[in-house]
Amino acid sequence: IETKLPAVGTTIFTVMSQLAIEHKAINLGQGFPDFDPPPALVDALARTMREGHNQYAPMTGITALREQIALKTERLYGRRIGVDTEITVTSGATEALFAAIACSVRAGEEVIVLDPCYDSYQPAIDLQGARAVHVPLRLPDFSVDWQRVRDAVTPCTRMIIVNSPHNPSGAVFSTADLDALAELAQAHGLWVLSDEVYEHIVFDDAQHQSALRHPALAERSFVVSSFGKTYHCTGWKLGYCIAPKTLSAEFRKVHQYLTFCSFQPAQWAFAEMLAQAPGHYLALPAFYQAKRDHFRALLAPSRLQLLSVPGGYFQLADYSAIRDVDDLNFCDWLVREVGVAAIPLSPFYETPPDARLLRFCFAKSDATLAAAAERLCKL
Amino acid sequence: IETKLPAVGTTIFTVMSQLAIEHKAINLGQGFPDFDPPPALVDALARTMREGHNQYAPMTGITALREQIALKTERLYGRRIGVDTEITVTSGATEALFAAIACSVRAGEEVIVLDPCYDSYQPAIDLQGARAVHVPLRLPDFSVDWQRVRDAVTPCTRMIIVNSPHNPSGAVFSTADLDALAELAQAHGLWVLSDEVYEHIVFDDAQHQSALRHPALAERSFVVSSFGKTYHCTGWKLGYCIAPKTLSAEFRKVHQYLTFCSFQPAQWAFAEMLAQAPGHYLALPAFYQAKRDHFRALLAPSRLQLLSVPGGYFQLADYSAIRDVDDLNFCDWLVREVGVAAIPLSPFYETPPDARLLRFCFAKSDATLAAAAERLCKL
Ligand SMILES: CSCCC(=O)C(=O)O
Ligand SMILES: CSCCC(=O)C(=O)O
Repeated sequence: IETKLPAVGTTIFTVMSQLAIEHKAINLGQGFPDFDPPPALVDALARTMREGHNQYAPMTGITALREQIALKTERLYGRRIGVDTEITVTSGATEALFAAIACSVRAGEEVIVLDPCYDSYQPAIDLQGARAVHVPLRLPDFSVDWQRVRDAVTPCTRMIIVNSPHNPSGAVFSTADLDALAELAQAHGLWVLSDEVYEHIVFDDAQHQSALRHPALAERSFVVSSFGKTYHCTGWKLGYCIAPKTLSAEFRKVHQYLTFCSFQPAQWAFAEMLAQAPGHYLALPAFYQAKRDHFRALLAPSRLQLLSVPGGYFQLADYSAIRDVDDLNFCDWLVREVGVAAIPLSPFYETPPDARLLRFCFAKSDATLAAAAERLCKL
Repeated sequence: IETKLPAVGTTIFTVMSQLAIEHKAINLGQGFPDFDPPPALVDALARTMREGHNQYAPMTGITALREQIALKTERLYGRRIGVDTEITVTSGATEALFAAIACSVRAGEEVIVLDPCYDSYQPAIDLQGARAVHVPLRLPDFSVDWQRVRDAVTPCTRMIIVNSPHNPSGAVFSTADLDALAELAQAHGLWVLSDEVYEHIVFDDAQHQSALRHPALAERSFVVSSFGKTYHCTGWKLGYCIAPKTLSAEFRKVHQYLTFCSFQPAQWAFAEMLAQAPGHYLALPAFYQAKRDHFRALLAPSRLQLLSVPGGYFQLADYSAIRDVDDLNFCDWLVREVGVAAIPLSPFYETPPDARLLRFCFAKSDATLAAAAERLCKL
């Protein structure tokens, strides 16, 4: 069989998680917590299954969950969205990202992505016969050079994908970023795919600048979020996409034949949590900020140079004082010899910069972070 | 936004389920049971969640589940498959069907489908920029006219999609069908997508002719199955695809970026059920045959003419003695005025035949079947 995706190998997250298991390393690579979701959520799921709800959910997700998402969206971002027409529940944010691209981008068109970027965007674009145009973020703060983005627009450009809080860097959009994005998208008639899976994890009193806050932007955006990141259950694979009615209609045409619908009992459990315990997601910034600060304090004596982390649950570190090798080699050595799995940055780039950076996930118990830091401080 | 799928509306299954709710009709439309999965399975899932397993599963599915699938496949179909290289767990059979098509069919190529066929095949083909070539099955037994299939092959044909036991008709492949399919696929170098989600539901001592039984066929086939259909939990959305190593490698490249992985706790629960209670799926033919026979006996006094049902959980019926209107109109009238939701056959066809057929799902409790039959016998 001739491959349709010649550039795709096994994702770096799987590679590093497998190496971590093989070498019994502490896994700060793949982005998932090593603690469990709230017990009330687990209980709600178990109860829901016992009450029935085990057959197909509605294709767009159960109404009770879409209602809660709409309430939360209005409360947080001041935007009223149509429960029946503008929200679609998906099998994780990954499915939502794929469906948004598949429903709106055609063969021969171009999609602007900002490097470093999450590794699922490019293959989804490639499968449409479209072309990803990579614009690098500025180092070391991973801010957007909007002039460079504007220069990358051609008559073929159809979409731009943004991600705030940003993976892997944690960079967070300002209101000026939203304005620049909106202006660009309007001027050139682009759709926007806004990957906001870390929407509830922003630090130091910063505010998450959702595309949904900006009316002109919201009108042309697919906004994707994830229950897995917010409720510490990445393995439950539930996410959603908010988009204006006409975009949602196209999104659903693809979703309908990609997975049709998603695990129904979890939908009831999240609907219940959102209604009864909004405190969970409101407490997330403080919860993860404490982890971030703890991890940074533990690494202070190390020879790693820590970049600032405005949001998300990843810490970038410059290892150039330790070894002068590329990041793939460094991470390979780190997992095998030091017993800590991290993620190199180059797989997030089309053209990796001349930098010595790696990514640690700090969504881990204090014991895990301490054990990893102990090893890292010996370097 | 200009649509990429101009022919796609809301699937007939959703349309009829919504009408059923609206008109408080008995829903024999969409294919799902109105009873629950085995309590041991629900308990296993709840326990697994409490034990952890709430983060990302491996991209290909957990090993314990893939091992059980391999054991079952060898036991039932005499084929040894590579646990690590030839099985991929997916978010329902729908995802598996999409990924198989997306990874192997390119723009400009053709895919042969046998009408009537499940409605997700065509949009998945369309999204590749490929073309579905529809070959009708023979009425009234829905057998394959292999000469017609051979005549439909062109130099552009890349794949053929088959489905046994067949939805909506229940037709089941013979060994001669497998031979004809294998010969055709080999002669023209086609991939085969074999949708076998009803593999465990065949009646009257017939045997399911899996593509996996036929070595020459298995070498070029994606074989798709569903835990939802087998364990009465269509809303759990777990399925899998078995394919030779090289095909699985391509399949996984797409799956990796479509959903990445599937709900982990259910994977542990199914692994446990398969290991400890193979009796469940072995008892399915008798379980559903009793329902089929019960439903047919209840409908015997009606003016519906019942077609034979060799497999699956759908009963086709000819309503021409009742009203001479097309099937969309008849089903619309039936749900609104009679209070029974069924599925018309024409949405499964590119060119609907001049027939008066509709589909009832008999995966329902005896009470549901009796209530529906009472209404249908009055017509
Ligand atoms: C789907 S595996 C990748 C998880 C993740 O979000 C990350 O590690 O960046
Ligand atoms: C995914 S909804 C359709 C369910 C089904 O398999 C059918 O009714 O044919």
